[in-house]
Amino acid sequence: MTLSINRASIRQWSVAELVDGCARRGVGGVGLWREDVAELGTAKAAALVHDAGLEVTSLCRGGFFTAVDPAERRRRHDDNRRAVDETAAVGTDVLVLVSGGLPDGSTDLAGARAHVADAVAELAPYARERGVRLAIEPLHPMFCSDRCVVSTLDQALDIAEAHPADAVGVIVDAYHVWWDPGLDAAIRRAGDRIAAYQVSDWVTPLPEGVLTGRGLMGEGCIPLDELGRAVASAGYSGPIEVEIFSDELWSLPGDEALNLIVEHHRASITTPTTGSRRT
Amino acid sequence: MTLSINRASIRQWSVAELVDGCARRGVGGVGLWREDVAELGTAKAAALVHDAGLEVTSLCRGGFFTAVDPAERRRRHDDNRRAVDETAAVGTDVLVLVSGGLPDGSTDLAGARAHVADAVAELAPYARERGVRLAIEPLHPMFCSDRCVVSTLDQALDIAEAHPADAVGVIVDAYHVWWDPGLDAAIRRAGDRIAAYQVSDWVTPLPEGVLTGRGLMGEGCIPLDELGRAVASAGYSGPIEVEIFSDELWSLPGDEALNLIVEHHRASITTPTTGSRRT
Repeated sequence: MTLSINRASIRQWSVAELVDGCARRGVGGVGLWREDVAELGTAKAAALVHDAGLEVTSLCRGGFFTAVDPAERRRRHDDNRRAVDETAAVGTDVLVLVSGGLPDGSTDLAGARAHVADAVAELAPYARERGVRLAIEPLHPMFCSDRCVVSTLDQALDIAEAHPADAVGVIVDAYHVWWDPGLDAAIRRAGDRIAAYQVSDWVTPLPEGVLTGRGLMGEGCIPLDELGRAVASAGYSGPIEVEIFSDELWSLPGDEALNLIVEHHRASITTPTTGSRRT
Repeated sequence: MTLSINRASIRQWSVAELVDGCARRGVGGVGLWREDVAELGTAKAAALVHDAGLEVTSLCRGGFFTAVDPAERRRRHDDNRRAVDETAAVGTDVLVLVSGGLPDGSTDLAGARAHVADAVAELAPYARERGVRLAIEPLHPMFCSDRCVVSTLDQALDIAEAHPADAVGVIVDAYHVWWDPGLDAAIRRAGDRIAAYQVSDWVTPLPEGVLTGRGLMGEGCIPLDELGRAVASAGYSGPIEVEIFSDELWSLPGDEALNLIVEHHRASITTPTTGSRRT
């Protein structure tokens, strides 16, 4: 698999610095965020990456569908259409969708989940016409209340499977799904729905807010080698994108951070696993 | 359901103070920890609770089965037998089991989970002979690596169902399971396996270490009224035990903390829900 670096992993660098650093190390792609594209302009962002011989492997992110107020829902829908346009314009077909959490004060989890499915259904035809695939990302259940009511790969697939596979896929992010006892079966079920595969590692203790404490591949307890093989066996042949939110990594000079990522990536896909993974 | 207060919710109080505070408010039970029982002596702890007209609703906790070293496994097994003895001696039939996380440096999650099932099978006959029910508690997936590889109610049931229902049950702790898209079905499946029902609420941001940031019932996003009804519909008629690990609650005078718990409990079981829960 081609290695790609999600821009959030080295946010101490500009996109230009990241692209340059990746090109010098033979890293094949970068995952970008809408903020980056907005700052540079879509055409310039695309040119920056492609002129260096790299590809844009994903755009982060659309979603946050779970507003209750109808006007806000409409604004979110319009913004998601713009996200689709930006995805196509920046030269990737993967738009990462994070569903959004529970509305403030709500305990209606099932209602929020049903609304996400409806919102994806509304957005999917628009995306498909533009050659963009909506990639539903389940987030770890610790983010269920405030970021993403889609908590498992099977849930993401339940939503995606109502649509053609080229219109709606799913993201397998090791950090979010590694704990799931149904993971092996869900990856097999996902098959060609897998639109992206992202890696980092699970380390404890989690920091306050639980957002910025991810580890480098191999530092934690996720069997990344096995997981990568499972994703490949399911039919995924796209890039492996490193997405690490880490206060520690962000505190380093960008070159050092990228070196660490590349080294840990190489080690994580060549180390024999310590045990068997059973379903 | 009878209200019970888990001793960890008001750790600023001694067990004697907690029992007194509960008796004065008509709270029917307390959940104790092995440390409490060890400090007081089993007979004295039992007498303290029963003489005040209360019951011991659970003893926390056995488990932590996932050591790799054979000698350590043997020590854990012996300690779990002692926990069974203490459970019987203190006058409850519910021993809370927290399975343990991944061994240091291991990525073999499936192996650890299989070992938990084996360890429960080894302990169950001993417990049953003494009238003690092993109560397997799934913990939220954010604790999977370091505390508990049993992450869902269905997983706990997969282990429990290999044994008679009076020997091995499960705990439904709202904080740990509320996010699970399979929860409604799992509660119906659990039926008379439900050995205890515990409540608190999910609030964010989570604190560093994610252990001590639980909310009072009604402060967060868990539909406790619905969940209580689901558990009752499944056949559970035991106590509702409040277990809140909260730096905020622990910082208050014990009387104030207990008043808050009792008030929030009453409100949480009488408030109409804001929406429908669908499977």
